[in-house]
Amino acid sequence: MTFETVSTNRSHGGTQGVYKHASSATGTEMTFSVFVPDHAPGTKLPVVWYLSGLTCTHANVTDKGEFRAICAELGIIFVAPDTSPRGEGVADDADAAYDFGLGAGFYVNATQEPFAAHYRMRDYIEQELPALVAANFPVDMARQGITGHSMGGHGALTIALRNPDRFKSTSAFAPIVSPTNCPWGHKALGGYLGDDRAGWAEYDACALIEGGARLPDLLVDQGDADNFLVEQLKPELLQAACDAAGQKLTLRMQPGYDHSYYFISTFMADHLRWHAERLG
Amino acid sequence: MTFETVSTNRSHGGTQGVYKHASSATGTEMTFSVFVPDHAPGTKLPVVWYLSGLTCTHANVTDKGEFRAICAELGIIFVAPDTSPRGEGVADDADAAYDFGLGAGFYVNATQEPFAAHYRMRDYIEQELPALVAANFPVDMARQGITGHSMGGHGALTIALRNPDRFKSTSAFAPIVSPTNCPWGHKALGGYLGDDRAGWAEYDACALIEGGARLPDLLVDQGDADNFLVEQLKPELLQAACDAAGQKLTLRMQPGYDHSYYFISTFMADHLRWHAERLG
Repeated sequence: MTFETVSTNRSHGGTQGVYKHASSATGTEMTFSVFVPDHAPGTKLPVVWYLSGLTCTHANVTDKGEFRAICAELGIIFVAPDTSPRGEGVADDADAAYDFGLGAGFYVNATQEPFAAHYRMRDYIEQELPALVAANFPVDMARQGITGHSMGGHGALTIALRNPDRFKSTSAFAPIVSPTNCPWGHKALGGYLGDDRAGWAEYDACALIEGGARLPDLLVDQGDADNFLVEQLKPELLQAACDAAGQKLTLRMQPGYDHSYYFISTFMADHLRWHAERLG
Repeated sequence: MTFETVSTNRSHGGTQGVYKHASSATGTEMTFSVFVPDHAPGTKLPVVWYLSGLTCTHANVTDKGEFRAICAELGIIFVAPDTSPRGEGVADDADAAYDFGLGAGFYVNATQEPFAAHYRMRDYIEQELPALVAANFPVDMARQGITGHSMGGHGALTIALRNPDRFKSTSAFAPIVSPTNCPWGHKALGGYLGDDRAGWAEYDACALIEGGARLPDLLVDQGDADNFLVEQLKPELLQAACDAAGQKLTLRMQPGYDHSYYFISTFMADHLRWHAERLG
């Protein structure tokens, strides 16, 4: 498992790095970013995984997420992967739409051609990248948290719900809470997994909770001026699923906030403090 | 003096706006951004002007500057203009180089053709934009500070030194302190102002200080891993000019930091606190 350093920059009393490697999960080169606060030699730090939304690479949150100051203060490593495989030979949406294909991997293992060859973001985020990060960065893998935005909020919730032993803390910014119940999800899960919806449930946070998956608690922030709120995001479905299941959830509607990094960056420090309390 | 709203987004308990207007100074359309923290109706807030460096528009600091949280905390309005005129008919560097022409106005009023027609960034920043902002935003023009990065640090220092009554606080990130004494400056001032260096002094912070200009104090942060430190930025020239003149200067060399927004964003909150102390 080798990787290559694309860049490192000193920032906020730590090192912001960008790295790339040949991924066996996706069969492509994958790029990710890691922020490591200064720390005593030999010590290991808790890690928060941040999964990005549609159209993003690692770069969007790395540029606009405003996570470094608070990560340095709290002593948290912050990892930001890409959102899909990329490169020659990687299939895209037939119309190159923003909501499927490149930049829109939805954190699933695709079963449908021509996507099954490379779109294996579930394996990448659940297996390959954690192993690579654990082997090469000073992370305490017993103290992991996960968060994400929109499609990445969907990724964070579903990955944590399927792997409750791995994560001590889970939060999301404006997540897609039930791809089974929104147009983005219909297109993505239909395209990657096929029309048999039985296979969709493991990629639907509400369905996972309804099926018995549990986490200690969840934090979700959602802007009430978000253009995607009503048709795609539907936090009320997550609230209902959590209420019915007795799953603890803090859902905060944020007045006036939209779906952009202006929203994410505003509540990033809150989320990281919340993770730090649970990661110890 | 009319202007048009390009976008507004709620962020960090305030409003981040982007605006454009037909500039009489440059004869072009100009775009700028303004962050206004929430405030009591009818109150006016101090304002800090941020001048960007080579290649930038208003967007770089607006995306990456990490100023909103601290501006909201301190109650400061933050204005970020563009770095040059743009659009059809605006002359560029003959080779489209990054260090002259578009994105590189150097905050001067050009006297040389073909630049004199539009490259009037001094008038724009000193006269036209302040009048527009004062008329349309809740700014207390008796409480203005100015800062900037690299070419914009040069802009901030020279504009403040020429207008000491306007600014209560002046700082800079990795500024060009003496364009008369570096390649970027030779190219820019030669190209915009011509070869007669007598006309350059009013655009050279060190020369202005040597010529008697004074400010209450100056704060400058400079990364010691900045690729442009030795050949272009030369903070030792500013230190020497200030020492010789008795001009108060806090010059902080920041170990390991480079010339990027990773550096700027790290020290942005420090600078804004420093401005707030002086703006009241």
